[in-house]
Amino acid sequence: MNESSVPAGASPLAAVGQVIEALRARWPDRVSTSEALRRQHANTFTWHRPQLPDAVVFAHTTEDVQEIVRLCAANQIPIIPFGTGTSLEGQINAPYGGISIDLSPMKEILAVFPGDLSCTVQAGVTRKQLNDYLRDQGLFFPIDPGADASIGGMAATRASGTNAVRYGTMRENVLSLTAVMPDGRIVRTARRARKSAAGYDLTRLLVGSEGTLGIITEVTLKLHGIPETIAAAVCPFETLQGACDTAIAAIQSGIPIARVELLDELQIKACNVYSKLTLTEAPTLFVEFHGSQAGVDEQVALFQTIAGDNGSRDFQWSTKPEERTKLWQARHDAAFSCMVLKPGANVLPTDVCVPISRLAECVLETKDDLARRNLFGPIVGHVGDGNFHVAVLFDRDDADEVKRVKSFSKALAHRAIAMDGTCTGEHGVGQGKMAYLDAEYGEALDLMRAVKRAVDPDNIMNPGKIFTL
Amino acid sequence: MNESSVPAGASPLAAVGQVIEALRARWPDRVSTSEALRRQHANTFTWHRPQLPDAVVFAHTTEDVQEIVRLCAANQIPIIPFGTGTSLEGQINAPYGGISIDLSPMKEILAVFPGDLSCTVQAGVTRKQLNDYLRDQGLFFPIDPGADASIGGMAATRASGTNAVRYGTMRENVLSLTAVMPDGRIVRTARRARKSAAGYDLTRLLVGSEGTLGIITEVTLKLHGIPETIAAAVCPFETLQGACDTAIAAIQSGIPIARVELLDELQIKACNVYSKLTLTEAPTLFVEFHGSQAGVDEQVALFQTIAGDNGSRDFQWSTKPEERTKLWQARHDAAFSCMVLKPGANVLPTDVCVPISRLAECVLETKDDLARRNLFGPIVGHVGDGNFHVAVLFDRDDADEVKRVKSFSKALAHRAIAMDGTCTGEHGVGQGKMAYLDAEYGEALDLMRAVKRAVDPDNIMNPGKIFTL
Repeated sequence: MNESSVPAGASPLAAVGQVIEALRARWPDRVSTSEALRRQHANTFTWHRPQLPDAVVFAHTTEDVQEIVRLCAANQIPIIPFGTGTSLEGQINAPYGGISIDLSPMKEILAVFPGDLSCTVQAGVTRKQLNDYLRDQGLFFPIDPGADASIGGMAATRASGTNAVRYGTMRENVLSLTAVMPDGRIVRTARRARKSAAGYDLTRLLVGSEGTLGIITEVTLKLHGIPETIAAAVCPFETLQGACDTAIAAIQSGIPIARVELLDELQIKACNVYSKLTLTEAPTLFVEFHGSQAGVDEQVALFQTIAGDNGSRDFQWSTKPEERTKLWQARHDAAFSCMVLKPGANVLPTDVCVPISRLAECVLETKDDLARRNLFGPIVGHVGDGNFHVAVLFDRDDADEVKRVKSFSKALAHRAIAMDGTCTGEHGVGQGKMAYLDAEYGEALDLMRAVKRAVDPDNIMNPGKIFTL
Repeated sequence: MNESSVPAGASPLAAVGQVIEALRARWPDRVSTSEALRRQHANTFTWHRPQLPDAVVFAHTTEDVQEIVRLCAANQIPIIPFGTGTSLEGQINAPYGGISIDLSPMKEILAVFPGDLSCTVQAGVTRKQLNDYLRDQGLFFPIDPGADASIGGMAATRASGTNAVRYGTMRENVLSLTAVMPDGRIVRTARRARKSAAGYDLTRLLVGSEGTLGIITEVTLKLHGIPETIAAAVCPFETLQGACDTAIAAIQSGIPIARVELLDELQIKACNVYSKLTLTEAPTLFVEFHGSQAGVDEQVALFQTIAGDNGSRDFQWSTKPEERTKLWQARHDAAFSCMVLKPGANVLPTDVCVPISRLAECVLETKDDLARRNLFGPIVGHVGDGNFHVAVLFDRDDADEVKRVKSFSKALAHRAIAMDGTCTGEHGVGQGKMAYLDAEYGEALDLMRAVKRAVDPDNIMNPGKIFTL
């Protein structure tokens, strides 16, 4: 087994070895037990320590996945689905060892239905690949979690990102899924109609289940027409409160804003260094408006008024593609730029989401709490949804700092839950947020467990994620 | 037990009697076994024969529901939740007898959060009651299934209706639910944040579960700002194809149309008789646009161009409330007007929904099929979603006609499924659509059954609905 501690009841080495040999016999070129590849398949980007699978196997079709699942199920070997490995909460870790099924070869765009504004893709298709493919047809897939994640992984973690305020999350944009269940059966969760009242919503049950119920192999998505006009704007504020209040008021006044992103002054500073920019180091909103020319003009004017009422210092905007890209560059680089603030540091990403009326309060209390604990981390938020991230930068070898980081993260999750929010708006639970689900759900958590036990009685599907059984 | 056949394994009369006595002892004024009341609680409006519960009990709080469920669970007595009794597929029937829990006294609007565009209501609140309450705050709840249904019932059946094309269905508009589970536990499925990636989507699991997993007692809903401008229009067409193609093209071109309803010439005729109107008896689209003045003007102009390209004969529109109401009167009366075409007839409502690119084809084939079978029924469709209803009018005492109606209904469901659509877009499965789920879901239906067995192992929650176990 791998380097991680193996809890009692884990599959015995012999069985794993037999499964690996059987996989090799079936696909000589698609199975690897090399440490480098296994390590890459447990690379979590963040503070989670990697827990390596026993082997990695590459799947090319739904039927491949079915064969692998059947083999693992017969031997009670854990299965960990892998798309691009860009999840942040240890979703791809293998705490009980087992087989990592890499779906990245499943890159076929199976069908585009322009008349229905939908498409069906294999799980390994990435969002950028899909959008490159769709562009000529005037269509796009709006969900943008930052990383060029796989569509299957985005469905599995209920991803969202910058466009969710206008277009919804994966919850709203998946029409149907094909999945391989723990007993090897292939199910299609729904048909392609835009609505249905035919029985339980299996699509939504699998969206966000993080591989613990079945392996998503094909996804039918809603698409959207590329807007006639896109305007991007950048708007620094005197105070963080003013920036938050602007986002809140924009949502409340019904502006169909496509993106509204908050970067605090620390994040702007990081972006200035990282991308050699000269932005004012102040809390800043990055916004984007989609629509007809007249519609966008109207949205921009209304937003500008609201921003002015809340202490905006400046308001730069453009509808020209190259200028828009330049205006938004800092936002695009935010995820990678924060490391310049503390080179070599570890990062603990947080992900709370609260009702938008509590957003300013939650952000400001969190900022105070960071200072109080002598911690350090920029803030980026999809504030139109009430969702924001603190990227806490710390030194893993500083035991006291680690302790403070952990208590900060816990306090933040509980602060959000106390405001009727959630410990994770879009990253998912994985290993990192398990501790908070009791507080967030109470008795409902047992209902999740009952569903898990019914669907995966042997707990072979990505065990050790979301909750303990 | 009641008049229906009682399958083996149904609860013995003695146990039902004991439960009823216990309920009476607890709430002397809230339990009834009168035939009239029991009959009213199994009134299905349509072709389903009523199957009466053994008793009706009125619940005032979530805790009341919990007590009733615990009592029934201890005695394995079926429980049938009842809101307003406006479901169409036998959802409130009691094929195995049992206790109908009437939640209509649960009429409290518990909280409105204007800053979050959301509210929490008890399950018995009706949509009109809610909208009357919200109007002064400039907010509205958009889902409009026609009947003044209860919010709990609308969530349980995943209702939608005329506004769904713009605002989504109950699937998209429920943020969180409180429900009493079969073991009497009270769960809250989610918190109030607009998005979350924290574990399984229990909210969506219960939305559309038709009382078979638990009883919804409180619902947190998304709300929307009342649009600055609303324009209504009526637009007759030379052909049914032209009307369908207009709806399809409007959706494809991204017009954020709020409502787009098709009435065929037969339905218009019925409305003319019923409401004493003088509309051209032709396939007609009733449309509504929401937005700013400039936005609505733009939508109307674009739609008018599309309609003209598809053979519209006329285009009447208005933004004045009283004129809008007058223009749309035929649409509002459609549900009740069809009876004038065949007084005393029974009605079999159908409810297929297909990908919008297949809509015209599905409607036209269905119309041909009606004629071929010598049947008779107007068509009303929420065509922006690809969803349409044929209200087949027939004489229950004419055995041959009944046979033809049933084969028509079956052929229609399979036609929609063959077009990658669903047998029910918004009415739910109940008893009426159970026969089609195998064709629609295949293996996935067993996954639904596994979830049902895990959550309700004794099958006391609305048994005999959606699927057999």
